[in-house]
Amino acid sequence: MNQYAAPVRDFRFVLEEMLAHRSLSLPGFDEVNAELVDAVLEEAARLADDVWGPLNALGDREGAQRHASGEVTTPSGFAEAYRAYAEGGWNGIGVAAELGGQNLPEVVASAVQEMLHGANMALGLCPMLTAGAIEALAYHGSEALKTTYLPALVEGRWTGTMNLTEPQAGSDLSQVRTRAVPEGDHYRISGQKIFITWGEHDAAENIVHLVLARKPDAPQGNKGISLFLVPKFLVDSAGRLGERNGVVCASLEHKMGIHGSPTCTLNFGEQGGAIGYLVGEEGRGLNHMFTMMNEARHKVGIQGIGVAERACQQAEAYAFERKQGRLSKARGGAEAPIGEHLDVKRMLLSMRARTDALRALALYCAGQLDVARHASDALVRAAAQARAEVLIPIVKAFSTDQAVEIASLGIQVHGGMGYIEETGAAQLLRDARIAPIYEGTNGIQALDLAGRKLQRDGGEALFALLAEASLTVAALNDNPALAGLGKALAAGLDDLDAAARRVLAEGQDPERGQDAVQAYATPFLSLAGHVLCAWQMGQAALCAEAAMASGSQDPFYRQKRASAEFALTQWLPLGRAQRQLIEAGWACLQFDAP
Amino acid sequence: MNQYAAPVRDFRFVLEEMLAHRSLSLPGFDEVNAELVDAVLEEAARLADDVWGPLNALGDREGAQRHASGEVTTPSGFAEAYRAYAEGGWNGIGVAAELGGQNLPEVVASAVQEMLHGANMALGLCPMLTAGAIEALAYHGSEALKTTYLPALVEGRWTGTMNLTEPQAGSDLSQVRTRAVPEGDHYRISGQKIFITWGEHDAAENIVHLVLARKPDAPQGNKGISLFLVPKFLVDSAGRLGERNGVVCASLEHKMGIHGSPTCTLNFGEQGGAIGYLVGEEGRGLNHMFTMMNEARHKVGIQGIGVAERACQQAEAYAFERKQGRLSKARGGAEAPIGEHLDVKRMLLSMRARTDALRALALYCAGQLDVARHASDALVRAAAQARAEVLIPIVKAFSTDQAVEIASLGIQVHGGMGYIEETGAAQLLRDARIAPIYEGTNGIQALDLAGRKLQRDGGEALFALLAEASLTVAALNDNPALAGLGKALAAGLDDLDAAARRVLAEGQDPERGQDAVQAYATPFLSLAGHVLCAWQMGQAALCAEAAMASGSQDPFYRQKRASAEFALTQWLPLGRAQRQLIEAGWACLQFDAP
Repeated sequence: MNQYAAPVRDFRFVLEEMLAHRSLSLPGFDEVNAELVDAVLEEAARLADDVWGPLNALGDREGAQRHASGEVTTPSGFAEAYRAYAEGGWNGIGVAAELGGQNLPEVVASAVQEMLHGANMALGLCPMLTAGAIEALAYHGSEALKTTYLPALVEGRWTGTMNLTEPQAGSDLSQVRTRAVPEGDHYRISGQKIFITWGEHDAAENIVHLVLARKPDAPQGNKGISLFLVPKFLVDSAGRLGERNGVVCASLEHKMGIHGSPTCTLNFGEQGGAIGYLVGEEGRGLNHMFTMMNEARHKVGIQGIGVAERACQQAEAYAFERKQGRLSKARGGAEAPIGEHLDVKRMLLSMRARTDALRALALYCAGQLDVARHASDALVRAAAQARAEVLIPIVKAFSTDQAVEIASLGIQVHGGMGYIEETGAAQLLRDARIAPIYEGTNGIQALDLAGRKLQRDGGEALFALLAEASLTVAALNDNPALAGLGKALAAGLDDLDAAARRVLAEGQDPERGQDAVQAYATPFLSLAGHVLCAWQMGQAALCAEAAMASGSQDPFYRQKRASAEFALTQWLPLGRAQRQLIEAGWACLQFDAP
Repeated sequence: MNQYAAPVRDFRFVLEEMLAHRSLSLPGFDEVNAELVDAVLEEAARLADDVWGPLNALGDREGAQRHASGEVTTPSGFAEAYRAYAEGGWNGIGVAAELGGQNLPEVVASAVQEMLHGANMALGLCPMLTAGAIEALAYHGSEALKTTYLPALVEGRWTGTMNLTEPQAGSDLSQVRTRAVPEGDHYRISGQKIFITWGEHDAAENIVHLVLARKPDAPQGNKGISLFLVPKFLVDSAGRLGERNGVVCASLEHKMGIHGSPTCTLNFGEQGGAIGYLVGEEGRGLNHMFTMMNEARHKVGIQGIGVAERACQQAEAYAFERKQGRLSKARGGAEAPIGEHLDVKRMLLSMRARTDALRALALYCAGQLDVARHASDALVRAAAQARAEVLIPIVKAFSTDQAVEIASLGIQVHGGMGYIEETGAAQLLRDARIAPIYEGTNGIQALDLAGRKLQRDGGEALFALLAEASLTVAALNDNPALAGLGKALAAGLDDLDAAARRVLAEGQDPERGQDAVQAYATPFLSLAGHVLCAWQMGQAALCAEAAMASGSQDPFYRQKRASAEFALTQWLPLGRAQRQLIEAGWACLQFDAP
């Protein structure tokens, strides 16, 4: 039961049919074609299904272990599975060729990431953090740092980490206190960082920590924070590993889930300071971090979808094996698997429809990132970048909130067995529960959307997206079989438009604008997530209908059609109600509780 | 941080102000007055806060342990804490005087139960199961069985269990296979039961198992099932403990939560059969079980509320201690605890408003049970019983679903710390997650509501309840400060009325009625839960306004007023959207997936 099978057919549906492989026609992807993409998906699925997936439950049971020496061992098989990934070249698939990567479009890299997270989220975190380090270095590192560190990171021989949080500096990074004292061509870093994912482990030769810290004379607040690279082992100019640097794992957290992922407290410079190197400009550490934060947030959304997919698969498998009760007389009266009972079917379809929708939206967003990076026209690039930046907090927050609900529903489908750890359904909820928290809590995502992303252009990027979505309404309305879905989507788009205008109008108020944005942020993001997912399912319905109209008998299309119907009639209305929370105003939050 | 303080003030608000202590004026409660109720609440709070609560985290860490002998030890301190409860006379507070109980109204017993579950849900399960055994015996047991077993159960010297589930018989108990072979004045019971809560432990002298089983010649299906009493130690006619009976704990489940509660696989009669005694009539075992099922389900709802309350307390404490970020300039610009940020305040109010509402509804339902048992007029009793039976599946399912969401939000308020087990927020979600599953899954509750409870009287009991709720609308509308809430509540009541009429109409269809009920059940229950909780918060607003109008400066009333405002404007609209799922019909569930 507790097995993962990468949904290759679903990825192909989104990439080929919904997105019409548009990324492949962008400049720079001349060597990528649909056959290559298929081959990549198939090969990644083998790694996910056969190597990573089978370790998921074991990783949860064994967990990462810290030894008295400060060394950390990951669960049995994790180091080998990571190396199989690195040696297969997977770490560089989305990385540009000039950095040693394989230069595949982000849509393909995202699909592969979803598979790996679905197979084993705890292990998937390791390369996810490395990807952030690669981006930070590639954008902001000196040529010397890039030459020394990037090749091994891109190959996956070394892994990367993000060292942001300190006990007093969580969502508010302006409170960072870790110190960086200049010394010759480097710095001596000292301080403590917490919640460092894969901060110490046994799966790679070296670990490259990217660390936010402050020079002794730096100003208070954000502007005094710089970004430093601190390797676990020092590296000489020829790339050879040298002495152990002064960064040690002081403890591992005992977490609700992702037990296989070592979450470390790292002490820097207990004896005289760890050697570190400035990345980018002094005082611009937070900006440099945020360069890559957008993409890291997109990846966390993808991670949620991977876990949601696994929850769907497990619930579906159980529900069609487990027999309890009988069907109604009208349906024949036979003993039936629980998946045939309509209330259980509702749960299964709710899980499946939401997972389909979240995936489609996240991959649409990945396609926008491809355009933003590769289109020949600067205006086209800028528009796609703005659109992706609106979508990313939605993909991150909405996908992960929904993943928690989907994993919880997966437990419910199993009845009592769902609560037994050996079944595996509980692990998915425990694992998924971190995703709304890290890489910027979902509250922070909502503020980013309703504040920065919406207000900075007066809603232009969002309204352009809604205009595109209204083309889907028109297409649905053109097909009598789909006109009901078109009407439902149109109503949702109206709600989002109206809510955005209200959040914009109140947000511009010089006196109370900032508070209004805070107050409305969460329902606004939820509304946007529901409506944009519904839009994607409208697109899915169009594609499925087109395939069936041209004679396909593949039951896959009937399933997608049903999934779309469910999303638009049984899920969207719940999201649309968020508009009413905004229209009720925010006086109710002004009570001084408790 | 991780402390529980029983919300005595909240219980007094509901019992005295919202319910006006109406239960106390019923026949049979002549010796109960408001002062006694207060004293009981205060004393129960001490047990919860000082004895049970501090063991909650430890119980989670240690868990119950099974030893090679088959004996089970509960976590350190659990047995002593249970005995403190029993010796304090708490086990009999809601039990009738003629059975040796203290004959307090159900509203008071329910409040005490909420405290104990909030303090320590895993331990609270032990007396919860005993209460079920007491009811089954009191209603259906022979005089001899009652004389032998009831006194020790009511005192809490012995505990009780419910043995229903077998591997092939979960939601569908007609599949029960455990055998009962007649032998003289007793039976020999053999078979295996799973998921038996507190099925074996070290906290009491004896355990009284109530077991569903079948005689060899019994018919297939429900009508062949009888109920048997199987003691762990045989008892002689003088009530003295004798030999160990043939029931052993074969294993404990490794669960997501409630680790302190031993969930046992029990093997009956491995050597020749365990001695058991028929309870009630042959072939009526399921009916006898269902006699007490209604009240057990009410208690599971209460349990969810207890955990939700603890989650609120923990999140509030953290949010007003943890400083991150600054307030807007309009609010002074100072550094602030996160609870002051409006998006976090939204989470806290959402948790608090829902918990307040669920508690009020569950205690209203308990008050109906008091009327159903004690009113002098048989018609009044019958109407209250019918109303309670409509409410109970809602209290069970809606409270427990919401408790899971509230506990999850409690983690979110803590940010990264919420995911660390030592914080304690994660345990609350892990513990709460069982409640939507056991004592009839929430899907089963929804079927019970939309099927049996709604259809059997053509909706009469529900519509009578809605008529009572419309009096609250009128009262709110009479106060200009509350008219907005009155309008919101009226809209909710309309939705529930319309949805009920649709589920009734389609449910009566001889051909597809049963399927329609299954298809609509879950959204219908969710709608009913939201609307009835909103009704209760309308009542709470009236009571709070009345207290403030008569000059009270107690900030408690401002908090309840804010909670009501939030419930009606920021929570009810999400529930009202469930009506639209029903109005969209159920064609979308008829696809044969996957």
